Amino acid sequence: MEWDGIIKSYRSYMPKIDDENIITLKEGNTPLIEAENIEKDFPGLKIYLKYEGLNPTGSFKDRGMTVAVSMAKQEGSQAVVCASTGNTSASAAAYAAKAGLKCVVLIPGGKIALGKLAQAIAYGAEVVAINGNFDDALNLVREISKKHPITVVNSINPYRLEGQKSSSFEICDTLKKVPDYLALPVGNAGNITAYWMGFKEYYRNGMIDSLPKMIGFQAAGAAPIVENRVFEHPETIATAIRIGNPASWQKAVAARDESGGLIDKVTDDEILEAYSYLAKREGIFAEPASCASIAGVIKKYKEGLFKDGDTVVCVLTGNGLKDPDTAINLGGKSVKTVDADLKSLEGAIYG
Amino acid sequence: MEWDGIIKSYRSYMPKIDDENIITLKEGNTPLIEAENIEKDFPGLKIYLKYEGLNPTGSFKDRGMTVAVSMAKQEGSQAVVCASTGNTSASAAAYAAKAGLKCVVLIPGGKIALGKLAQAIAYGAEVVAINGNFDDALNLVREISKKHPITVVNSINPYRLEGQKSSSFEICDTLKKVPDYLALPVGNAGNITAYWMGFKEYYRNGMIDSLPKMIGFQAAGAAPIVENRVFEHPETIATAIRIGNPASWQKAVAARDESGGLIDKVTDDEILEAYSYLAKREGIFAEPASCASIAGVIKKYKEGLFKDGDTVVCVLTGNGLKDPDTAINLGGKSVKTVDADLKSLEGAIYG
Repeated sequence: MEWDGIIKSYRSYMPKIDDENIITLKEGNTPLIEAENIEKDFPGLKIYLKYEGLNPTGSFKDRGMTVAVSMAKQEGSQAVVCASTGNTSASAAAYAAKAGLKCVVLIPGGKIALGKLAQAIAYGAEVVAINGNFDDALNLVREISKKHPITVVNSINPYRLEGQKSSSFEICDTLKKVPDYLALPVGNAGNITAYWMGFKEYYRNGMIDSLPKMIGFQAAGAAPIVENRVFEHPETIATAIRIGNPASWQKAVAARDESGGLIDKVTDDEILEAYSYLAKREGIFAEPASCASIAGVIKKYKEGLFKDGDTVVCVLTGNGLKDPDTAINLGGKSVKTVDADLKSLEGAIYG
Repeated sequence: MEWDGIIKSYRSYMPKIDDENIITLKEGNTPLIEAENIEKDFPGLKIYLKYEGLNPTGSFKDRGMTVAVSMAKQEGSQAVVCASTGNTSASAAAYAAKAGLKCVVLIPGGKIALGKLAQAIAYGAEVVAINGNFDDALNLVREISKKHPITVVNSINPYRLEGQKSSSFEICDTLKKVPDYLALPVGNAGNITAYWMGFKEYYRNGMIDSLPKMIGFQAAGAAPIVENRVFEHPETIATAIRIGNPASWQKAVAARDESGGLIDKVTDDEILEAYSYLAKREGIFAEPASCASIAGVIKKYKEGLFKDGDTVVCVLTGNGLKDPDTAINLGGKSVKTVDADLKSLEGAIYG
């Protein structure tokens, strides 16, 4: 019943952090839900959903951030900084608030979509738009951390992956076995790297006796690993994986090859179809990028990748509430208006 | 580590439901987080936050909905229906999707705020706007359920409270004692009723040896119980508790009086202040209505209600992501824009 966050739950696998420096919002321990309805549509496959959208700030980033911010505190840092317009900024701002540290979020200037920044703003981060692009922001983050006691919590922070790997432990602990496949979206490629680290560490410690095949999916418009080339102008509706030059590129390739897995791409249409299908069939609302894992599994099922009885865990990286506009754009036009009497309502529902 | 939803976890306290009819998204088991920073501002008080926003659809409604929809399935219903523009519709739509049942959501016509309906739309509910107000919608919901095999899952459904009471069990199980006070927002008053039911049942079964005082807080513009009169036109920024004539009015009064508690009101300004304070101080983003519990505890602390060493659990009923606009309106104007060089950035952060 009790859960005290991922650092205390998997302490022997984590960097050494003194109790008084642990900053936790009880991240992790997210549900692993059997997709009983989707299984009916894809006979032979056992499908489980690791719903990371139920982390404290609504995405898997919290697993890494608890470690990164705890270490920042332990090392005497007075602030954290990141370049991010999305899940990383939300998570950094929340953990910094709990730690009593200042949080600075750098975003590219130009048209600023405040919706994506609602959380960082709520948690009290100082949001600074710079007259430049995302790479300029990331460079400035590095520069300022060299000169001031301010810790970078972008993916170059090595502690992030240490925390993120905890989801692999949870999957094995809950499922009581190792899945045959672990399917997940691939953007900056930190998550596939971290999951693979986690499985290998559990294996080395004798907690599990086999390893899953890692199957990652990029958006077709942002598929640098699949096509083995940098995408100068990545484009996809799945903004959380709109990355043209992933930070963990080589580690993701290693995870793929060591595990005997694959990294493939799915189109925006396939992602949106999976997004809508997942919500309507299983009652789970995940952000579009999350659904690259579902879209990918469907694609590979049709191609005959799986054999009868295989178990696949799909990682749903973020909460659908992060991006309500996509849901409304897809289905909002279907709202009917009728008169307030029984007959009119019957006509609308059953007619 | 494993959690299989509230029905299986508290089976002896729940209506009898056969295994094959249990519809769960693994609701419940939400974090109870000690508000270590807030405690520093209110010395003498131990404050815990029951963060119900981490339920599958982002609010406490999921606890009741798993029972209501499971019973609907068991009883052979083919659809569920509710009048709701908010958390109830989201929850009903998600559980209906998992159950393979149709879900109809009735909303008052006029200007339709699709943002609040994003989840219901995503989960595939049929949303019908009627030319009438909320009461008309609720009347139609009742009428249609008498004539067709469609189950009402509004608060008149008795199974909702049976599920909602499970949060009391979790609080006692996690805290390993009974809090002195249970603070929560009061709108339709179902939740204060359900929590009190839960504590009393645990007490009768010998699981706990005392009972908490129930302290509920209404918005000043929608305070029918506090002022003992129906509010014809309730108004508050905390939309989830904007109720002028609560369905569980008398039960809430009973919970208050039996427990030796109180029901008071807090202003919208106090709610918004608590909302911002909670996010910035504890890194927890809750919807405005949730923060009536925090605002109320602060008010009562200043009035001298608590004695040294008292433990208060504040229920945070919903996720802040349900209402990002409030966060942006409060803090969005503070975004600065600077040139993309170190000196300009230093000026913005440290200058």
